[in-house]
Amino acid sequence: MQIEALTKRLRQFADDRDWDQFHAPKNLSMALIVEAAELAEHFQWMSEQQSSELSAEKLKEVSYELADVFIYCLRLADKLGVDLPKAVDEKIVINEKKYPADKVRGSSKKYTEYE
Amino acid sequence: MQIEALTKRLRQFADDRDWDQFHAPKNLSMALIVEAAELAEHFQWMSEQQSSELSAEKLKEVSYELADVFIYCLRLADKLGVDLPKAVDEKIVINEKKYPADKVRGSSKKYTEYE
Amino acid sequence: MQIEALTKRLRQFADDRDWDQFHAPKNLSMALIVEAAELAEHFQWMSEQQSSELSAEKLKEVSYELADVFIYCLRLADKLGVDLPKAVDEKIVINEKKYPADKVRGSSKKYTEYE
Amino acid sequence: MQIEALTKRLRQFADDRDWDQFHAPKNLSMALIVEAAELAEHFQWMSEQQSSELSAEKLKEVSYELADVFIYCLRLADKLGVDLPKAVDEKIVINEKKYPADKVRGSSKKYTEYE
Repeated sequence: MQIEALTKRLRQFADDRDWDQFHAPKNLSMALIVEAAELAEHFQWMSEQQSSELSAEKLKEVSYELADVFIYCLRLADKLGVDLPKAVDEKIVINEKKYPADKVRGSSKKYTEYE
Repeated sequence: MQIEALTKRLRQFADDRDWDQFHAPKNLSMALIVEAAELAEHFQWMSEQQSSELSAEKLKEVSYELADVFIYCLRLADKLGVDLPKAVDEKIVINEKKYPADKVRGSSKKYTEYE
Repeated sequence: MQIEALTKRLRQFADDRDWDQFHAPKNLSMALIVEAAELAEHFQWMSEQQSSELSAEKLKEVSYELADVFIYCLRLADKLGVDLPKAVDEKIVINEKKYPADKVRGSSKKYTEYE
Repeated sequence: MQIEALTKRLRQFADDRDWDQFHAPKNLSMALIVEAAELAEHFQWMSEQQSSELSAEKLKEVSYELADVFIYCLRLADKLGVDLPKAVDEKIVINEKKYPADKVRGSSKKYTEYE
């Protein structure tokens, strides 16, 4: 329900601005990656530790970048006609089989190799 | 509820594999952008029109790439302690003020300028 | 010579600012992708045709974004100790074998499949 | 000379395969970011330290990913008609003024703020 309601609101947002014409999946995939990069930019010179201890102000900024990525995910799923919760559900099952817990435990190397 | 349930399931997935140790926000932001690029790769040589008319097989592949992006969004929000639905809600309100429908209608130029 | 001279200049630039400490390959790979995204952002709502017909002003902006990507390529190669012209040379030979001209001519599909 | 010679070779590579038709700047900017992500993928679960101590085998792989990014930089500059060495030269001068050595020394925070 939550995801569906947000999807509808974003569709309305695009329609109100007559922006649907720009929202070809190709273009949305670019916008998505651009937002993901704006998110990553906050972390690029931080250590992993620092990235886990953001100030309240920085966390607010980061949360809005993450929201933008999320928004483009929903918008792209909507334009493609993809049932995103269903796809996520299926993909988690695939990942569970691909990375069996007893074989990959604690190893990022396994993670990378299997990917 | 939906987003919260998925978040918990992904937390369990990482815990079962002892992968939480690799999931610093910095690293997750990289994984997120890598998945976003795998998604964009499908579209890079297509026309906008072609990206709107995917075969069933291609659409399935694309939907799983999109699911991976979505999964890392939820995982990153969880690790940062961000209430993602709330952040999305606030960001949509910000966007609505930033791009007033009557001023930007039908213009991708306005879109870009304002951004 | 050209690439070597630019590499030295960028090394000096980082040393003068005591920024070498931040330039772990991991971090530089993030900075590189962030700059690549700033470049792509210019094109995201354009048609392919429009992206081939930039105004002089837009072209200047785009050329500086491209320069930033190039700069991080050189910087990353320097920090990794990679001989970039040699790697490029070898990679072109690999690509020539991977995509034989007589088999993939005119097909972006072959392009994607082979990749 | 070096950069110019590589540019010509890459132009020939595209012409031999009749791929120039796919190389709109928009599409090349996507391909560039996709290659940058394949590069970053190698580093995503590594610590900064680990990214500085790659095995010979991993370094070879990484150097070819970096070569791909470099190749798309040259190809994009060629298609845009940008004199890349000149743009890089100008951009370094701009960066030198933007980040005066005596003001930003040793601070990644200044780095980020100024950007």
